[in-house]
Amino acid sequence: MQIFFDDRQCLHNPARELHNGDWTDYYESADRARKIAGTVGAATAPADFGEGPIAAVHAPEYLHFLKTAMTRWREAGRSGDAIGYVWPIVRRRALEFGRIDAELGQYSMDASTPISDSTWEAAYWNAQCAVAAAHTVLSGEKSAFALCRPPGHHAGRDYLGGYCYLNNVAIAAQHALDQGRSRVAILDVDYHHGNGTQDIFWRRGNVLFASLHADPRTDFPFYWGHADERGEGDGAGATLNYPLPRGTTIEPYRSALSQALKKIEASAPELLLVSFGADTFALDPISHFELQREDYAVIGRDIAALGLPSVIVMEGGYDLDALGDNTTEFLGAF
Amino acid sequence: MQIFFDDRQCLHNPARELHNGDWTDYYESADRARKIAGTVGAATAPADFGEGPIAAVHAPEYLHFLKTAMTRWREAGRSGDAIGYVWPIVRRRALEFGRIDAELGQYSMDASTPISDSTWEAAYWNAQCAVAAAHTVLSGEKSAFALCRPPGHHAGRDYLGGYCYLNNVAIAAQHALDQGRSRVAILDVDYHHGNGTQDIFWRRGNVLFASLHADPRTDFPFYWGHADERGEGDGAGATLNYPLPRGTTIEPYRSALSQALKKIEASAPELLLVSFGADTFALDPISHFELQREDYAVIGRDIAALGLPSVIVMEGGYDLDALGDNTTEFLGAF
Repeated sequence: MQIFFDDRQCLHNPARELHNGDWTDYYESADRARKIAGTVGAATAPADFGEGPIAAVHAPEYLHFLKTAMTRWREAGRSGDAIGYVWPIVRRRALEFGRIDAELGQYSMDASTPISDSTWEAAYWNAQCAVAAAHTVLSGEKSAFALCRPPGHHAGRDYLGGYCYLNNVAIAAQHALDQGRSRVAILDVDYHHGNGTQDIFWRRGNVLFASLHADPRTDFPFYWGHADERGEGDGAGATLNYPLPRGTTIEPYRSALSQALKKIEASAPELLLVSFGADTFALDPISHFELQREDYAVIGRDIAALGLPSVIVMEGGYDLDALGDNTTEFLGAF
Repeated sequence: MQIFFDDRQCLHNPARELHNGDWTDYYESADRARKIAGTVGAATAPADFGEGPIAAVHAPEYLHFLKTAMTRWREAGRSGDAIGYVWPIVRRRALEFGRIDAELGQYSMDASTPISDSTWEAAYWNAQCAVAAAHTVLSGEKSAFALCRPPGHHAGRDYLGGYCYLNNVAIAAQHALDQGRSRVAILDVDYHHGNGTQDIFWRRGNVLFASLHADPRTDFPFYWGHADERGEGDGAGATLNYPLPRGTTIEPYRSALSQALKKIEASAPELLLVSFGADTFALDPISHFELQREDYAVIGRDIAALGLPSVIVMEGGYDLDALGDNTTEFLGAF
């Protein structure tokens, strides 16, 4: 299986995040990618597909913000990473601001996802990995793996959050559609709900989005991923959420997965994209499922049994000791 | 003029706020109220009008959250003040959570307004001051002053923010309506836009809300207070925003004030409520207008010239040396 990874993805390096009321070290470290890259096998740097595939998913004003935020942050006399402190929870709409703090709030959903010096560069090459993986599969390979870091599934069309800046899996999915595929499916098996992916395809009938995740009543991102969220308009019924309680082990997990896979199969996609997070692991330091290393092979085989051309995109996973092995187990099934 | 103040308002005492990317000392200190109380003249503790007038403005689930947040914060193993880190910028809706962090985000608009041990008690007596001032004017007095602290105008029906927890002026306005007045007007002359007040009366035709404030393109609360926000439904046209640039002096300020007062007069309210902030002062440490001490008497006289029964409710103002004097200048006109 071809694996895509670019060293520039490691340039993104925030120092800290706001979590549970105080600063903590930034969990989503570059070491995550290095651990995975050191275990899963030889990776290829992606070709440069340009900004087109990114702009096909994200709003131009948001991309402009991502590119300029650190310059404007410094112009405002600030040091350290850029982070918001006010958010438009009521009547959010397109507005133009003359202050970086206003933009940081407008284009984010949390205070846990700072912008650092090379965030744009890292996110750009990260997205290129996802496009390259999609390109490989669209060109006839059975599967490919985009070793994305930072992750992407919490990033919406015009907002960052949950360590995510560009939505890699959405960019890959849209690229497939723009290359002539008419129906694709995204399966999100990260511990956290993929709210950004859901929002991006909320009104789209040609992208089925199915997500297994920790119940948002207790887990990030809280405000998205509840079972009654099913899409709207053309997308009504094309969003499927399977919230699972903390402590979930492989049996109930496979049961929910089986339901999601049946829906995916019934939607007859030409391509499957998988948002893969290893933070469902029992020892993950910030998550609360109870999956074991060998379970990742099981889950991988269940998904691979669909027989669909598959693009696997890396999302979360924070136990550095097990991250590479768990990912390798999962990928082995494809 | 009768002045209402209760020592319990000083119990609220957060240690810090997130501002411009890092913690700073909490600007909205109890000393603010003590400085004003020590200058404006003898104050009376309000009678207890109960929770009814508060519940007439704020959502029951929000009040429950305010009362229980610190207990639940501690049950979650946290120390210090309670503060959110994720916000529902997309598809905010009524949801029930099993985690205090989710509620902190659901019921707040920023990371600058922590809940501390006695926040509910302070906010409760604070609101009673506003109700007592309204009661005094409804009973026949020409004017009364509610020495509110913490301020209130950024708090919405179900969210806190900008140092505000309960919307004192909105509670006083609603109390007047519930006591039989049919039309009231709220004039907000704090430096910052009164987004909470605007949201609460957004669809109400019997409450005119007019606000002079720093342009939200550069100043908090950023996402509210733009000139094109004019209310909706029954409230269409009953919200009037006058954003002013940083550096505004008394002449352009009076010019905008004159427009607002004409609209208020034309709406023929039976009662005027004034959200008064002294953070329009030239030396205010967190604001950027250029009003001088003597200007507060001018502004006060312009407003008093309407000849309306007037309830003045304290909002912001952070220059402790001048806060009492500036407030006294303003009140002197009534």
